[in-house]
Amino acid sequence: MDRERRAGLQMQLQEAISSAIEAGQFAAGDRLPSTRGLAAYLGIARITVTMAYQSLVADGYLMTAPRSGYRVSQEAPGVAAAARPEPKPPEGPAVDWAKRLPERYGLVTGLTKPANWRSLRYPFIYGQADPLLFPHDAWRDCARRALGRRDFDVVAGDFRQSDDAMLVSQIIMRSLPGRDLYAEPQQLLVTYGAQNALWLIARLLFDGRPAPAAAIEDPGYPELRELLRLSGVRAVPVPLDEEGLRVDLIPEDVQALFVMPSHHAPTGITMSMRRRQEILALAEARDLVVIEDDYDFEMNVLRRPSPALKSLDRQDRVIYLGSFSKSLFPGLRLGYLLAPSPVVEEARGLRTLVARHPPGITQRTTAYFLALGHYNAHVRRMRDEFRVRCRLMLDSLAEAGIALAKPSAVGGASFWIETPGVHTRQLAERILEAGILIEPGAPFFASERPPESFMRLAFSSIPRERIAEGIAKLAAALKEAS
Amino acid sequence: MDRERRAGLQMQLQEAISSAIEAGQFAAGDRLPSTRGLAAYLGIARITVTMAYQSLVADGYLMTAPRSGYRVSQEAPGVAAAARPEPKPPEGPAVDWAKRLPERYGLVTGLTKPANWRSLRYPFIYGQADPLLFPHDAWRDCARRALGRRDFDVVAGDFRQSDDAMLVSQIIMRSLPGRDLYAEPQQLLVTYGAQNALWLIARLLFDGRPAPAAAIEDPGYPELRELLRLSGVRAVPVPLDEEGLRVDLIPEDVQALFVMPSHHAPTGITMSMRRRQEILALAEARDLVVIEDDYDFEMNVLRRPSPALKSLDRQDRVIYLGSFSKSLFPGLRLGYLLAPSPVVEEARGLRTLVARHPPGITQRTTAYFLALGHYNAHVRRMRDEFRVRCRLMLDSLAEAGIALAKPSAVGGASFWIETPGVHTRQLAERILEAGILIEPGAPFFASERPPESFMRLAFSSIPRERIAEGIAKLAAALKEAS
Repeated sequence: MDRERRAGLQMQLQEAISSAIEAGQFAAGDRLPSTRGLAAYLGIARITVTMAYQSLVADGYLMTAPRSGYRVSQEAPGVAAAARPEPKPPEGPAVDWAKRLPERYGLVTGLTKPANWRSLRYPFIYGQADPLLFPHDAWRDCARRALGRRDFDVVAGDFRQSDDAMLVSQIIMRSLPGRDLYAEPQQLLVTYGAQNALWLIARLLFDGRPAPAAAIEDPGYPELRELLRLSGVRAVPVPLDEEGLRVDLIPEDVQALFVMPSHHAPTGITMSMRRRQEILALAEARDLVVIEDDYDFEMNVLRRPSPALKSLDRQDRVIYLGSFSKSLFPGLRLGYLLAPSPVVEEARGLRTLVARHPPGITQRTTAYFLALGHYNAHVRRMRDEFRVRCRLMLDSLAEAGIALAKPSAVGGASFWIETPGVHTRQLAERILEAGILIEPGAPFFASERPPESFMRLAFSSIPRERIAEGIAKLAAALKEAS
Repeated sequence: MDRERRAGLQMQLQEAISSAIEAGQFAAGDRLPSTRGLAAYLGIARITVTMAYQSLVADGYLMTAPRSGYRVSQEAPGVAAAARPEPKPPEGPAVDWAKRLPERYGLVTGLTKPANWRSLRYPFIYGQADPLLFPHDAWRDCARRALGRRDFDVVAGDFRQSDDAMLVSQIIMRSLPGRDLYAEPQQLLVTYGAQNALWLIARLLFDGRPAPAAAIEDPGYPELRELLRLSGVRAVPVPLDEEGLRVDLIPEDVQALFVMPSHHAPTGITMSMRRRQEILALAEARDLVVIEDDYDFEMNVLRRPSPALKSLDRQDRVIYLGSFSKSLFPGLRLGYLLAPSPVVEEARGLRTLVARHPPGITQRTTAYFLALGHYNAHVRRMRDEFRVRCRLMLDSLAEAGIALAKPSAVGGASFWIETPGVHTRQLAERILEAGILIEPGAPFFASERPPESFMRLAFSSIPRERIAEGIAKLAAALKEAS
């Protein structure tokens, strides 16, 4: 801790001195305070000042001369003070941007959360990493390896015809087998997470196609709905029952089908084997493409994960999407798609056009994390922990008389709850003050007037010991509201 | 070096043992060879084996028992051997992907380079980082800070309404002033590099617009042309003279203008002040939007960088794009756009829809690198080194009788060369065997039958001591070819 504090102080010093020099607040040759004097003045260790000065010497901001201490270098980087621009306000809004831009995307919000959610006491929020479960040391070790000179070419260069070959082979060897999947490297594309994969596939399948339409699950992932709408694709919502998507209700005029068979979001339902067979049969009969979003398969809390729908696909009709957002963390922006190689080739071309490729640093760090066994170990640890939290949640919910919605299922890292008569968006706002964070269910529904009495309660970010207390407080608030 | 070798061996051991356990090649309780025995057998240090075993214990693959050494854990992660799928070949190409997909993007290649270019002796290639100039230690130190527990929330979470605030403020304080630019945080969007920024802006300006058309520089950046074509935008090529884009030749029916005023690629021309004023006047008269791609401003080798075109813009008509690809490395995939806040808001929405946001790791690491002064120091060092290389190149070219193309200019990290009568694509293929890498000029031209006698010769990746030799060899090959 002390070491971290010292690094923080050293950084503040380096930042202040280097930016003052760049801003022209010192002249070349100006003498800096002695390390002893500055340390005493600031009340910090002399070594901290010395280390900051030495780093600034290495970067050419300062120079040392025998017996004269540290001085501002003649060659210090940065701009001269005189060159600094005065901020000039524009003459006025010369361009009518409202007319110039479609103004469609600024309104896309998806699921939002308060910025300060980590400081809340009862964060029943889904999809964020738990810093207490995350193996920081192992991850840092992998990052250190990825940043070594040996890997510089891979990490610093640009990928064109391939991604990081090590990551691709690690996904194939260490992650896909857990889903009963097998792939050749040319069938795998690394993406900026599942959202990016969904977008790429939607553009490839529907761009320029007459009457584009896709069936989606309702309730379902709100950002898929948005993405299809903004891509000009008609998204046809199809309801679920206990076995998953109602295959019998899929309309005839769709060309593709987006499903989450492993754990449907938000209900947690795992699609039955029978329903999976029906989907594949229907896809064959109607020449449909099926997109399987397997965003959190590794988090199956109560039993062995079901095989991927893709593992049953003998016709290469299923495009499979995996993601490291839930198993590692969403800010990593890393996922992949597994598809026939012509699809991968086109998706790679489109991804390159739009945003090139996920950075080498994140690809190679994740590759080491998989290779060293840390990844599967971490998934295992999360699953063990989530199993405990899941049971605590079930007990607390039962005690509080809060019932799961129908249809819904236990298995993922969240519960889908219906509280008849309670407007959960209003409730969520009200209980935020008490530190309780829930996710209102309305955004998951396709309807413009969605039911307001649902919520998702997740346990991936709340410590065990706060669960019972949090659910009890939620129950009290519910009682008050109904 | 020895430490690195040991880390490599330890990694191989961990990888082999953890994947064998996951694959079911050991049963729970199986005893592993003793550290002493395995070390002797493999001819490596015992400590390496011990450290690998201990890491596997920490990850739950192995357990230790007093006096019985290391055994496979009952709780080892991974799948049982029986569950491993046999790879089953698909029944056949059931889906006609050629009909199903537009097949447009797979053909996009842009500028390609041989995969083994780093092993070539004379790599006159542009745009790749030089590992001998890159400050690995400072960068790793910044990555270590970004991966600390203190920053976990920023790095692991997802950005919605903003990017990493530290990176945004560092760009504003430490990088933009060097371009005479000033920005408020809401005017800045972090992008996946300049390519991503160009794509976002093209979609925002032209999507759904009747008769979309933009003027581009010819020769110019090939991937901008591709990007516009694939976005359905008519790209009108406009030639340059010594002062830059021929403003008088910009046709009337375009709505936007893409320019590289700082160093035009591939000619290296810096746009004159008069031409800049003409562009802004024309933009005002015709209500044009100007996109300034300032991809390598920091690399001005011979003189102080010219101010950005954007710094003259009093009407907020110029959208400015910056990139860390050249100053740090392209695999980082990090850049930014500076634009009026309504544009930034829409671009953020579109970026989020397509690929969310550049990873927290790369954003925060770069933020520290800027904050600590390493960034401007690194840019300064590169500039100093490139100045030396530039003079060596000029001397060698003069001695070899190789002339710069007209119009072109000295200033960036490359030269634009015309070799009348020599087909440079054929030449490039031929001299590759001799370890000489040049970039043929044809892809930079908009014409379907581009002139074949141009090439770009860069010096950002070739060490000083190979320049004279490389140019002499190139000159000999040229003599032979003409």
